[in-house]
Amino acid sequence: MAEDRKAAFGWPVRVYWEDTDAGGIVFYANYLKFFERARTEWLRHLGIEQQALRHCTGGLFVVSQTDVRYLKPARLDDLLHVNVGLIKTGRSTLVLAQQARLEPCGSLLAEATIRIGWVDAASLKPGRIPPPVLRQLSEPT
Amino acid sequence: MAEDRKAAFGWPVRVYWEDTDAGGIVFYANYLKFFERARTEWLRHLGIEQQALRHCTGGLFVVSQTDVRYLKPARLDDLLHVNVGLIKTGRSTLVLAQQARLEPCGSLLAEATIRIGWVDAASLKPGRIPPPVLRQLSEPT
Amino acid sequence: MAEDRKAAFGWPVRVYWEDTDAGGIVFYANYLKFFERARTEWLRHLGIEQQALRHCTGGLFVVSQTDVRYLKPARLDDLLHVNVGLIKTGRSTLVLAQQARLEPCGSLLAEATIRIGWVDAASLKPGRIPPPVLRQLSEPT
Amino acid sequence: MAEDRKAAFGWPVRVYWEDTDAGGIVFYANYLKFFERARTEWLRHLGIEQQALRHCTGGLFVVSQTDVRYLKPARLDDLLHVNVGLIKTGRSTLVLAQQARLEPCGSLLAEATIRIGWVDAASLKPGRIPPPVLRQLSEPT
Repeated sequence: MAEDRKAAFGWPVRVYWEDTDAGGIVFYANYLKFFERARTEWLRHLGIEQQALRHCTGGLFVVSQTDVRYLKPARLDDLLHVNVGLIKTGRSTLVLAQQARLEPCGSLLAEATIRIGWVDAASLKPGRIPPPVLRQLSEPT
Repeated sequence: MAEDRKAAFGWPVRVYWEDTDAGGIVFYANYLKFFERARTEWLRHLGIEQQALRHCTGGLFVVSQTDVRYLKPARLDDLLHVNVGLIKTGRSTLVLAQQARLEPCGSLLAEATIRIGWVDAASLKPGRIPPPVLRQLSEPT
Repeated sequence: MAEDRKAAFGWPVRVYWEDTDAGGIVFYANYLKFFERARTEWLRHLGIEQQALRHCTGGLFVVSQTDVRYLKPARLDDLLHVNVGLIKTGRSTLVLAQQARLEPCGSLLAEATIRIGWVDAASLKPGRIPPPVLRQLSEPT
Repeated sequence: MAEDRKAAFGWPVRVYWEDTDAGGIVFYANYLKFFERARTEWLRHLGIEQQALRHCTGGLFVVSQTDVRYLKPARLDDLLHVNVGLIKTGRSTLVLAQQARLEPCGSLLAEATIRIGWVDAASLKPGRIPPPVLRQLSEPT
């Protein structure tokens, strides 16, 4: 399936002191950072640099919804593998499925559905994702 | 309704530089921090200090699911009002509804459903919330 | 002494889960956030809102140097008192002394010397602090 | 010189949204995170995993002083090179010099002197760095 192929993009994330909390594990809010690093690298891999995108189009992607389930804890020094799968593309919205797994065994730590919108950088008003960007997202790489 | 009464707990959160990102607005992941500050103060208001709770019971609350919708941006220096409503109590799970509103006009910025579990602090294995703690959560204050 | 009077400005900071690390204590980098919250509130207390300041002057304060000593750890649920003392004012630089103490006993946790500069918000080039702002900083309150 | 050789350890750090603030640049406190990631990887490169170190010795490294100068701003999508040089080793203290440079041109963004101590993990009382650890730090790699 097309989705399986796209879910193949992954990014390694190492757990540092900054990521942990006094429970001795990764602070749950930080998975949103890990998921975003992976999305940013997925965009870069597709040829999209967000800083350049903003200069060219006057707009930027914004996160409009994050649904996350935290299943197992990660600890200092752990190495995670975070993947990104584009599961829906609309004119003004993307929906992505993401997972964080513990290396090397692959046990699932957290999984998320992330909804992304597009806004004008100055007014922050919602708008349509520029069609060339949409095409770049859906082309095979 | 009982829920309305309980939703009455609120906590002020000021937006500082640390909370913002290069989009000029509050970084979306930071709403999870704001929601947690309000939950912590709600627990304190009910007589529950989490550090002490851990010493007494050997367990701690952990976040198992966070579903958040980001509706409007907040900016540096904004003052937010974050509320907490307990919408479901189980033997091993709490579900809370939370909202962040912009002061003084009250426009809704973000809203969340947060699911909380209980684990043993040493093994991090899930367990039942101690009954005295459950009673403290449901008593009128 | 003048410095003593100015050192009188203080701001309470509560330690939440987000502030701690797997050592069970406040992550040292977060003291920079605590110090900044106190500086922001000190400016607000002097009538200076940084978002409005940027709109009016086209410039903003930036941190150019932070020297911090971490003396004792703070833990989850601790209440800190963070103070701000303006120790030197130049045409393009401020130097502040700050301390974080544990309430209620006042033991010193961390202390810092913070150097602040001024830049143009668009070019990020250094410049002189607008004289009306400098006057506002040095007036007795 | 020995110091030059040791300063050779470097680690790449990419700037993500999480690292920036509303000034459009990397939030200064986050350089402490970047410096720590590089120190952690330098230790790992020397064969020292901090989580394992704590299990074996009952102790951990803690940061006791951070003196940082912020010279030039970094922005979203920038790639930094962060280096680590051990400049002094004592029985209970390490002093490191670190720099963050912008790739690929190498312009200096921030530089720091970081003092590290050793504490017992349970009591958080200062102690001597275990001699085998000290030896590992000073051996040529």
